[in-house]
Amino acid sequence: MRVILVGFGVVGQSLAKLLLSRSADLYSQHGIKPRIVACVDNKGSAVAPAGLDLERLLKAKAKGGVGLYEKSERFEPQQVIENVEAEVVIECTPTDLLTGEPGTSHIISAMRTGKNVISINKGPLALAFPSLIELANYNGVMFRFSGTVGGGTPILEFAKRCLKGDRIVSFQGILNGTTNYILSKMEEGLTYESALADAKEKGYAEAKPELDTDGYDAAAKLVIMANWVMGMKVTMKDVARTGISGVSVADVKKAQSRGNAIKLIAACDSRRLEVKPTEVSKKDPICVNGTLNAVTFSSEHSGSQTIIGRGAGGMETASAVLRDLIEIRDTIFER
Amino acid sequence: MRVILVGFGVVGQSLAKLLLSRSADLYSQHGIKPRIVACVDNKGSAVAPAGLDLERLLKAKAKGGVGLYEKSERFEPQQVIENVEAEVVIECTPTDLLTGEPGTSHIISAMRTGKNVISINKGPLALAFPSLIELANYNGVMFRFSGTVGGGTPILEFAKRCLKGDRIVSFQGILNGTTNYILSKMEEGLTYESALADAKEKGYAEAKPELDTDGYDAAAKLVIMANWVMGMKVTMKDVARTGISGVSVADVKKAQSRGNAIKLIAACDSRRLEVKPTEVSKKDPICVNGTLNAVTFSSEHSGSQTIIGRGAGGMETASAVLRDLIEIRDTIFER
Repeated sequence: MRVILVGFGVVGQSLAKLLLSRSADLYSQHGIKPRIVACVDNKGSAVAPAGLDLERLLKAKAKGGVGLYEKSERFEPQQVIENVEAEVVIECTPTDLLTGEPGTSHIISAMRTGKNVISINKGPLALAFPSLIELANYNGVMFRFSGTVGGGTPILEFAKRCLKGDRIVSFQGILNGTTNYILSKMEEGLTYESALADAKEKGYAEAKPELDTDGYDAAAKLVIMANWVMGMKVTMKDVARTGISGVSVADVKKAQSRGNAIKLIAACDSRRLEVKPTEVSKKDPICVNGTLNAVTFSSEHSGSQTIIGRGAGGMETASAVLRDLIEIRDTIFER
Repeated sequence: MRVILVGFGVVGQSLAKLLLSRSADLYSQHGIKPRIVACVDNKGSAVAPAGLDLERLLKAKAKGGVGLYEKSERFEPQQVIENVEAEVVIECTPTDLLTGEPGTSHIISAMRTGKNVISINKGPLALAFPSLIELANYNGVMFRFSGTVGGGTPILEFAKRCLKGDRIVSFQGILNGTTNYILSKMEEGLTYESALADAKEKGYAEAKPELDTDGYDAAAKLVIMANWVMGMKVTMKDVARTGISGVSVADVKKAQSRGNAIKLIAACDSRRLEVKPTEVSKKDPICVNGTLNAVTFSSEHSGSQTIIGRGAGGMETASAVLRDLIEIRDTIFER
């Protein structure tokens, strides 16, 4: 299976390492032999129809960019996506929740040229999920994005596959590890400002943390789940969103005195699509600490189930991409 | 799809109700139209090749047994399993963890006559998993048992389907709701004896509670998971098993003072297969209260994930049977 990698950051590099270390058992156990035929980063490109040498590719990246892989012409992402023959394009450029670019353009080009798409970029999905799904169907290609929600924790797969035959009527969850870390630290007595500073120091929060603290990241994941799990046709603008910057130490203490905790809860049912700080019982399985993510699905017949795991991590997210690759391969094979 | 129902207790009756209430959407959404062509309970049988009227069947059961469905000859379970034409046999007679009977004989007969089997009876699996899997393979039939672990919580499916492409290296969990309820009550200050009495009163514990309190039920589920998820070939005798009757209020208090709780943990990795009371941190997602079940899977690349849900319930378990039916139907259809 030929794969084009668009973007080569932490997840892309983790995927390359994963493929290197597991090539033998991936073939023996899943009959899958992914070949990276092209890789593009923000500075250059590397193309090899017979498959790139992943060790050399990682070394080139470490030295400055995939363009150093070999002396050759530099191609733009669009050129590579449109012209290199491949079964799958993996879109892993940085997420932009305002414009969705350049991911959206990459995905559209890939689908238009008949390629299956795996995205770990949340931007295109948060802003244009319904139309991207339509485009995939129109072009007869598969579109998967397991790594966009929950990192390596298979939240989307759980909902789609494990609860087959039942109907999920609602779900709610902690979908952003950074804000959960900050709120957990506030429970330990830190102010919002010092908890945020601590999260930055530990590498959990970005220099500009608003994407997390204002609830944009959680809202993007909520949109993806609402579309995929509940069959809604919604985008970011449909989410009622409140961040955590207004949560005070006094609020946290008050909740604590009632045996509760304040969590940034993303919730979806037939009436609402909402991200906001919410008081939840400490006895509720959803009430996890630190950078963990947790989602509770409520189904018509099989009750409520909660799934908990780390919501981030390069290798974890790369393993989600690998699951998508295996699914695409299995489906192509069945055709 | 023609189905023989062997055993018609809480789960069997819940399944009949589920099929009645959902027949339209099961057909439209999953292309599945299960027809119960025979039903056997401990007192009689009802057979109708065109499909039993499930409302009448439930009424007959309420009046005393499925034998009252219509005046006809009474057939033994084995006769029905062997002679009635059907694609699937659902084994839901009571679990016997000492002999595995009559479930084991039913399952063997069904497989030998070329029928796919769904078991919600843990006995046959706990005592003879490896040979039953071999028999199923030999006869080219499917064998599913989602309802044996976690009730409606899709613990087995999660491990098998959602972590595809990764390798689970270990798992541990709270697999028995009754003992977890008792231990939770002891944390609130009750003695073991009064917590047990309370569990009996609420209907969570049987008159003879040793199946739960001595860890047999948890061990049976551990065996099923070790075989199915980890590919081991083990039975009940391979489990090192300690129940909760030796746990004192002092032990519980001591754990509490350290921010921990004592839970009956079933654990499996390459070196051990064990059920025993274990001190776990209250911050660990696995540390759930009341009758909840929880399992944490640790994978090579995608990290640790925890899944939590009610481990019992007639309708919940019936929904697990329905998932198995849909899977069998999808596989038959693909062939």
